[in-house]
Amino acid sequence: MTVDTVRGGVPENGRIPKHYVIKNRLIELLAELGEGGLLPAERDLAAAYGVARSTLRQAISELTMEGRLQAYRGRGTFVAPPKLIQPLALHSYTEALREMGRRPSRRVITVETVAAGERHSADLAIDPSAEVLHLERVLLVDGEPLGLESTYMPAARFPGLMDGFDATGSLYQHVVERYGPVYATATEHIETVLATPREAMLLSANPAQPMILMRRVSADPHGAPVERARSLYRGDRIGFVTRLTA
Amino acid sequence: MTVDTVRGGVPENGRIPKHYVIKNRLIELLAELGEGGLLPAERDLAAAYGVARSTLRQAISELTMEGRLQAYRGRGTFVAPPKLIQPLALHSYTEALREMGRRPSRRVITVETVAAGERHSADLAIDPSAEVLHLERVLLVDGEPLGLESTYMPAARFPGLMDGFDATGSLYQHVVERYGPVYATATEHIETVLATPREAMLLSANPAQPMILMRRVSADPHGAPVERARSLYRGDRIGFVTRLTA
Repeated sequence: MTVDTVRGGVPENGRIPKHYVIKNRLIELLAELGEGGLLPAERDLAAAYGVARSTLRQAISELTMEGRLQAYRGRGTFVAPPKLIQPLALHSYTEALREMGRRPSRRVITVETVAAGERHSADLAIDPSAEVLHLERVLLVDGEPLGLESTYMPAARFPGLMDGFDATGSLYQHVVERYGPVYATATEHIETVLATPREAMLLSANPAQPMILMRRVSADPHGAPVERARSLYRGDRIGFVTRLTA
Repeated sequence: MTVDTVRGGVPENGRIPKHYVIKNRLIELLAELGEGGLLPAERDLAAAYGVARSTLRQAISELTMEGRLQAYRGRGTFVAPPKLIQPLALHSYTEALREMGRRPSRRVITVETVAAGERHSADLAIDPSAEVLHLERVLLVDGEPLGLESTYMPAARFPGLMDGFDATGSLYQHVVERYGPVYATATEHIETVLATPREAMLLSANPAQPMILMRRVSADPHGAPVERARSLYRGDRIGFVTRLTA
């Protein structure tokens, strides 16, 4: 068995990128400053570390992408709180967040009824010409935009779906109250993608911020698909947890 | 209900980044070229699209980070195959990959016995001075490095763990064969992070490539922790799927 001895955070061949050295020094500084602490000015930090401002900026950019730093325009750059961790679950996140003492809300971006088309008809097992209701909302937690959720539901199955629906609240809860326990199982795909400019804007995220993309198809107790959802979560602000069993 | 009309891939305020326009034109080109197709030379593409090479490069870089393009030094940049999708499961990926007709293997990076320390003792419910076996391996699929997996197991619970173990194969299978069905449940945390220079090197990935980080603690049927694993997967090459139930 060959055992290389590549260890620690950097390759052993000695080619440690300068910004990575600075990043590690910044991580130590972040621990000293503590959550909410204000990062010193770029020019002061660059001078203190004896590096070019572009090198410092690259280190700060990576720490921001990873959610360890948060920049607020005109106010400065601060040590970020830990990522919000959400359980992967069939239900909406609204209840789970409330139980954690957080304040979830949603901002409506799109409400429309469109033809399913090829993209949704296969997943929803409906005709491409059949109508789907599309609801697109930004998930806010304590006022901060964390996710962009697009839900597609077959209009024929859920007549009057939007009637009396408070679109800042849980769609899951609304559907269950109105139509009964229609969510029984779901298949969820998880991957990482980069935000598009539109998504970054809607989520107040950096361009090309790594995101967690969840694509879900939910089915009723008879296995009939009831919902197709595409949710994009800020990779710097949220993580997920799930329980696996043998 | 306020319904903004921010639609499509870009904000409606008209400030569409030039590299994003080029990225979308490249996506169309990728579809024409098909999987494995060779991307034309940068200078030809930049001329064809009438943009600076730096703009083109940014678009290509994003497509590479997202796994739509793959660059091979000296050979060129090619349209990548779709991401490998793996089910989130308690067992090792070895079997699942073989069933998919893929050729999984592992390259050993580190084998060591170390004191648990604060980092592992809490998760593994052992004394910080107790020994853990640390096995770090690169997961290769069809020869391509896709993940970096670090596993920590309490040495006292698994005496002689490495004896007769083919370190290119499934640790899960080896443990079950030797010690019985010790894996009953696991808690898995999922988030996206950027690769460190060392990780990028071991995984032949770009520096700061978005990665999927999985942190898992597995427990035996009595709820006693048996393993702590930290697995980093290339966000451009692999995604995951899970099934949720009510």
